[in-house]
Amino acid sequence: MSNKGKLIVISGFSGAGKGTVVKGLVEKYGYSLSISATTRNPRPGEENGREYYFKTVDEFKTLIDYNGFIEWAQYVDNYYGTPRKFVEDELEAGKDVILEIEVQGAMNVKSQYPDAVLIFITTKDKETLKERLTGRGSEDAKTIEKRIKRAAEEAESIDAYEYIVINDDLSTCIDTVNSVILSRKCAKENNLEFISQIKNDFRLEGEI
Amino acid sequence: MSNKGKLIVISGFSGAGKGTVVKGLVEKYGYSLSISATTRNPRPGEENGREYYFKTVDEFKTLIDYNGFIEWAQYVDNYYGTPRKFVEDELEAGKDVILEIEVQGAMNVKSQYPDAVLIFITTKDKETLKERLTGRGSEDAKTIEKRIKRAAEEAESIDAYEYIVINDDLSTCIDTVNSVILSRKCAKENNLEFISQIKNDFRLEGEI
Repeated sequence: MSNKGKLIVISGFSGAGKGTVVKGLVEKYGYSLSISATTRNPRPGEENGREYYFKTVDEFKTLIDYNGFIEWAQYVDNYYGTPRKFVEDELEAGKDVILEIEVQGAMNVKSQYPDAVLIFITTKDKETLKERLTGRGSEDAKTIEKRIKRAAEEAESIDAYEYIVINDDLSTCIDTVNSVILSRKCAKENNLEFISQIKNDFRLEGEI
Repeated sequence: MSNKGKLIVISGFSGAGKGTVVKGLVEKYGYSLSISATTRNPRPGEENGREYYFKTVDEFKTLIDYNGFIEWAQYVDNYYGTPRKFVEDELEAGKDVILEIEVQGAMNVKSQYPDAVLIFITTKDKETLKERLTGRGSEDAKTIEKRIKRAAEEAESIDAYEYIVINDDLSTCIDTVNSVILSRKCAKENNLEFISQIKNDFRLEGEI
């Protein structure tokens, strides 16, 4: 099997709990997590380098010019990007890296890293998603409406993903995502070198 | 996700321990195991319906005529086949069924059940395989030679499989095969109905 790490792209409905799933994957299975850079302002409690790397627009644009992101996008007035150096260093060191990004970024990453694993986290149905989005109790009707609209848009992009994992029970979901990643390492496409080696070993000794 | 069970085809080098892996999958994860039918004579200790269903050549040929096998093949002088009814009943009942069969049968199954999962169990290299084949101590040189020749032929067929799982540590190997099966259930292709459902749910309410 290849010694390079795997790039794992995790997206999902807002409200499906993908943040918690990602946190679980890092804590339970030791995956490496890429922290995005953004030009949006830190929210109370957020820390530079933990939730995001907070950048000015100028800093961000310079990083774009220097090819510092493996993908970046603009949402409303803010920029978001995945720092290239961290990801490439980790992969080179054989670590599997999780990116928690949106569909546009996911497609972008896949075109550069064809063996990236694209996973979409969802609730088991739309009703559950709506319950979770409305049930937090802390948001006003307008915010909830915006979130549901966003989820509806996200639903249109599910086909772009290779795996759909339902987050019904958190711990099961974390284990299942881990299984998906493990399985990709066993896929034939990731073992062509191994296959060719073992065939050659037999052929060289003239045993066939 | 589909409620039908998955068909899991496990092949591998003689000496890679696939029999023990399959046993572990049944015991630890509750997979259903298909018992093959054969015309070869029972060996000491083998029981009808446990290792094989032992049939006469006439009985076997009648079963072929009645489409009683999902695949069958002749090796040397003996016939081997996978009884159709058991497999189809189990799949219909939502159970995942393991077939431990050779490459020819694997290809045959895949053409009839395109979403069958094809897994090849191997040692981590050829040397380890030879050690295992020669190290049993109970076989004469000629039998060992035949086994290695057979392994060399099997190596030529690895490409036919979708997943390559290395049996270095038995328990890890069993868990990895289980991961491969789990992950296939999450593959987009196995969730088209779910995807279309959730999209429709959003569209019907006019939320997009």
